[in-house]
Amino acid sequence: MNGLPEKFAELAEKVEGVLEDFLPAREAMAAEVVEAMRYSLTGGGKRIRPVLTMLSAELAGRSAADVLKAAAAIEMIHTCSLILDDLPCMDNATVRRGKPALHIHVGEATAVLAAYALLARAFELLAGEIADHELSPVAASAVVRDAACCVGVSGMTGGQWRDLNPIEKKFETLEYIHSHKTGSLFILSSTLGARLAGAESSIVDCLASFAKNLGLAFQIVDDVLGSEMPARQLGKDGADGPGKVTFVSTIGVESSRAVAGDLVRTAKLSLKPFGARAAELCSLADYVINRSR
Amino acid sequence: MNGLPEKFAELAEKVEGVLEDFLPAREAMAAEVVEAMRYSLTGGGKRIRPVLTMLSAELAGRSAADVLKAAAAIEMIHTCSLILDDLPCMDNATVRRGKPALHIHVGEATAVLAAYALLARAFELLAGEIADHELSPVAASAVVRDAACCVGVSGMTGGQWRDLNPIEKKFETLEYIHSHKTGSLFILSSTLGARLAGAESSIVDCLASFAKNLGLAFQIVDDVLGSEMPARQLGKDGADGPGKVTFVSTIGVESSRAVAGDLVRTAKLSLKPFGARAAELCSLADYVINRSR
Repeated sequence: MNGLPEKFAELAEKVEGVLEDFLPAREAMAAEVVEAMRYSLTGGGKRIRPVLTMLSAELAGRSAADVLKAAAAIEMIHTCSLILDDLPCMDNATVRRGKPALHIHVGEATAVLAAYALLARAFELLAGEIADHELSPVAASAVVRDAACCVGVSGMTGGQWRDLNPIEKKFETLEYIHSHKTGSLFILSSTLGARLAGAESSIVDCLASFAKNLGLAFQIVDDVLGSEMPARQLGKDGADGPGKVTFVSTIGVESSRAVAGDLVRTAKLSLKPFGARAAELCSLADYVINRSR
Repeated sequence: MNGLPEKFAELAEKVEGVLEDFLPAREAMAAEVVEAMRYSLTGGGKRIRPVLTMLSAELAGRSAADVLKAAAAIEMIHTCSLILDDLPCMDNATVRRGKPALHIHVGEATAVLAAYALLARAFELLAGEIADHELSPVAASAVVRDAACCVGVSGMTGGQWRDLNPIEKKFETLEYIHSHKTGSLFILSSTLGARLAGAESSIVDCLASFAKNLGLAFQIVDDVLGSEMPARQLGKDGADGPGKVTFVSTIGVESSRAVAGDLVRTAKLSLKPFGARAAELCSLADYVINRSR
């Protein structure tokens, strides 16, 4: 699937298989909202973030199957952010993952409501994980706080706002945008898996550092791919297409690839304490840098 | 404050005093989003919902001060829903609580992001309550699940969607809309206070029943007030103004007031087991029906 190495393909399939099951039950009076949630959620994403959740749980000694709700929650938060990004008042994109953007497909109001409903459902799934894993008050609180902070103004929301209101073509601005829009959710994906697995804080910290650098690398590679491919082939358009201030428009393709490479090397260093147990997370990092879409 | 009886005025002041403190710390790169959150949150609401949270906690044996974060979270969820309702793609309202609606004040994109950030902050505050009250995994899970379900497609989001897409002037449709848009959050306000106070499920159930009927009564009174007052005096306009299908347009003012009266009586009956301890919740119910704004 999607050129992912075999192990990730298997985990990505696992997520794919449960995403529909984890949507809310059919709400007869608002069935169109659930349908809109399904349309965007099952639109063929790469599922890198939920795979990161599962691999992080495995690193911390639990099986991937034990954190499926969290993995689905992560993909719902991600999908929610994509729906909002595409809105006419944001990037005004009409295509996403090769299909009409949700607001084109069902109208703006239903799209906004589906995005909120996906976010709400993500927290509902996290509530399920708190009970399933019998988390202590401190751990339960950390799970909810981490997810909320990732979404909020100190995370994805702040990043998206600055992306819409860039100060100038400054490296620091771009780094802020990417680390908040993309990095925050990579960090949550990884630390959530570890927290649910009962990992101690030193492990959570290593994974956070790994995911932070991986997320930034991922976004830079996205910029590079975006600069090299026509929008149609990339499956998206809007303000996120050519013309946007990106790493590539700021430092060029070659330097961007070099920075991404450095970041992935730094990311892998964070996992050194785990030795061979981190092999799969390291190949996920390699995939992120070598992917062609 | 706002014609509330003295006890509520005092609790409403308490919420008012902490709402600003509970906003996210100044996020330098996205300060405008925090400012937008503040603009809408401190816009002079009646604070009935957070007062309901505090009185419910008191009924269950805790002090109002012990659930301030939850009370603020409730008001943030409420404010989030108002911002979304006012969007051009929804009710297209330009005035809210007597001020320009947020999307008029800061633009649509920032308004959507501020709404999203308020919702995230609400969950962050609930995370704080989980730790503060040292909730068991089951109780922590219930708090997060209840809040998520209240916001999601089986709650406010579903209600708002159906409000934008009414089937016909049918009583059941209106009841669905009101019980989901308004009732869900009234129920959450009340049960959250009780759960954090460690109330057993029979108490939580009584409060849920009380709040469900109170919420519906509140919304019907809103319809009545809306039909009697010019939009300017009511402090809002848009599709939520005259012309909208409401209880009043369906069954008239007199029957609407009668239904609201019946609902408040039914609500109070749910609190009978608590005798005099429920006196303040009962007078909150009386206020809801007798209020003039």
